[in-house]
Amino acid sequence: MLNFNYCNPTRILFGRDEHKNVGAQIKAGGFERVLIVYGGGSVIKTGTLAAVQASLEAEGIEYFTIGGVRPNPTLDFANRVKAICQSSSIDLLLAVGGGSVIDTCKVAAAGACYEGDAWDFFTKGVKIERALPVATVLTIPAAGSEQSIRMVINHNGLKLGTASEHIRPVFSVVNPELFFTLPKEQIAAGVIDMMSHIFERYFTNTTNVDFTSAQAEAAIRVALANGPKLIENPSDYDAWCQIGMVGSWAHNGYFGLGHVEDWACHAMEHELSAFDPAITHGAGLAILTPAWMRYVQNVNPERMMQFAKNIMGKDSIEEGIAALEAFYAVMGMPARLREFGLDEAALEVCATSACARTKTIGNFRKLESAHVLKIYQSAF
Amino acid sequence: MLNFNYCNPTRILFGRDEHKNVGAQIKAGGFERVLIVYGGGSVIKTGTLAAVQASLEAEGIEYFTIGGVRPNPTLDFANRVKAICQSSSIDLLLAVGGGSVIDTCKVAAAGACYEGDAWDFFTKGVKIERALPVATVLTIPAAGSEQSIRMVINHNGLKLGTASEHIRPVFSVVNPELFFTLPKEQIAAGVIDMMSHIFERYFTNTTNVDFTSAQAEAAIRVALANGPKLIENPSDYDAWCQIGMVGSWAHNGYFGLGHVEDWACHAMEHELSAFDPAITHGAGLAILTPAWMRYVQNVNPERMMQFAKNIMGKDSIEEGIAALEAFYAVMGMPARLREFGLDEAALEVCATSACARTKTIGNFRKLESAHVLKIYQSAF
Repeated sequence: MLNFNYCNPTRILFGRDEHKNVGAQIKAGGFERVLIVYGGGSVIKTGTLAAVQASLEAEGIEYFTIGGVRPNPTLDFANRVKAICQSSSIDLLLAVGGGSVIDTCKVAAAGACYEGDAWDFFTKGVKIERALPVATVLTIPAAGSEQSIRMVINHNGLKLGTASEHIRPVFSVVNPELFFTLPKEQIAAGVIDMMSHIFERYFTNTTNVDFTSAQAEAAIRVALANGPKLIENPSDYDAWCQIGMVGSWAHNGYFGLGHVEDWACHAMEHELSAFDPAITHGAGLAILTPAWMRYVQNVNPERMMQFAKNIMGKDSIEEGIAALEAFYAVMGMPARLREFGLDEAALEVCATSACARTKTIGNFRKLESAHVLKIYQSAF
Repeated sequence: MLNFNYCNPTRILFGRDEHKNVGAQIKAGGFERVLIVYGGGSVIKTGTLAAVQASLEAEGIEYFTIGGVRPNPTLDFANRVKAICQSSSIDLLLAVGGGSVIDTCKVAAAGACYEGDAWDFFTKGVKIERALPVATVLTIPAAGSEQSIRMVINHNGLKLGTASEHIRPVFSVVNPELFFTLPKEQIAAGVIDMMSHIFERYFTNTTNVDFTSAQAEAAIRVALANGPKLIENPSDYDAWCQIGMVGSWAHNGYFGLGHVEDWACHAMEHELSAFDPAITHGAGLAILTPAWMRYVQNVNPERMMQFAKNIMGKDSIEEGIAALEAFYAVMGMPARLREFGLDEAALEVCATSACARTKTIGNFRKLESAHVLKIYQSAF
């Protein structure tokens, strides 16, 4: 186990109706001028946005709104949000949405406190020294951004991420009732993304990590048990509670304390989504994760066997991987990359791009672009 | 599952040598005048205190020291600490020790920001509105106070506790190397105390708590696996890492999110330790916990069976409880209350006192003093 320095001050308001307490929470935090950021029209249609606005109005909090964040959000839009923060002296960004909306707010929040362009954080290694506070009302459990130090943004055909404690939200509402209206594909992709956030931490060569391993295994088993219930019935509040907990804790750092983490699957998938924004992140992960497992299994068979046994309840690595694939199928995910309409040439472009900036990706096994291409091809 | 509102901003510095980073952490927090509080001479003998002082001196941080906190710490001592805080304009209390030292600091920290006597927080329901910041260098993993919102103090023959977010430490160092010199009885009592902190949350009648239940079960299994390794070899760094994680997370609230919690065993044990301060909290818990389980098992046999199966790996409730008792025996704990030299009359005094303030204790089954007496007697 490695030393660590960990602090997670995000306040979580969890459960029914909690989004109606946002105004009170903002007032308690001493914030006065809020910019509400949202995506498409779903938060309008469901009434979530109106409820949040009413909650702010009840506390006399001044706010502005901007909608229109798209999936795979862009730097350009984040910079528009940033400009509003600066021109309107915003002291809190309130994301009402999923990971795309939250990450847009994070980029804007850090950008508003930096003289250059926020792209520098992603490409020039510029450290984030300050950021406006961000709070969230989560409407899509998947990215875990509501409690994470990470953000991902798209620009110039690249999808890049970075991290800073300064962008961890000050508070987040996780109300499972807000997830009832999600389409099944989005539910499935979300469950798979949160499981992947735990896998990326779980697959490590760091030894002596019994505690975090056992916590990670338990969390993934809860996702395996509850995910299919939501595909069956997207209004299952009880199942959503468990998935909401898994998703929100999956990416806050807890399951990787004292580990070297991996992140190869996320890096490989981000290339695909950047190449074709129609590819859903969770669907890409569902295809790439088993392919990655098969490719790297010999690096640390003991850890792979622990996955098979303790998470999937199987007696061999291959059975464990096959059981995970069967789970993804139950969730309605595609199984092969060709189902996205990619051709083999696209795989080469993505494999080259995946390792262009860092030479290798991942830590469980350090993968060069030739390895990445083989994984893509095996998943084609 | 119930709604919850949770925030745990304690920064954890975990691992070898981390106590030497205390000065830098204090400087980063902007604190300038520190009061270091410790217990007996062990932190002097081991060099931990000197290392912490050197770390503060290296950063030019002004500090004062006061030693002498005893096990089952008193309000009188906490009030002495408070007086120093006030007379010396202290802006951070740094506890170097275990739960007794940390709780003394918490009482002093809240007391220093309150016009009346800190005992009011425990007896008059006065809400803590403010407190000086507290940080800790943990030397005894057990109480979990290094990451908790709780504090317990002794006064006038009473041992009472209360809670406030304002007393949750700003940061805590958990360096397993500092635990190597603990006597085996203290190691065992510590492991049992931290397991109890999880049990008190785990035994709930709240339904639909799969996620936190699975996390709690996994954490207790890690304690069961690693506790005996430390009795075998108190310098086993790897095992201490796992126990250090269990202990520090056991009492930070995580395992009880969205639950009604129980706390009957802690309440019953506090009476015994208040009656005779020579009774170690963990040893008392080792005796009372199985007795409590047998007494309340019919309230919710399903949950008791889940404990037996998922935590102890047994097929019946009684086998599960017996396996837990066997574990406590391996840890060298006493099995009967009479081993403490108590007589039956003492049990009656404690049973009456346990319910004197609240009429009943516990939530899994609400226990009146007559029930408490029966549990004490069954454990006699």
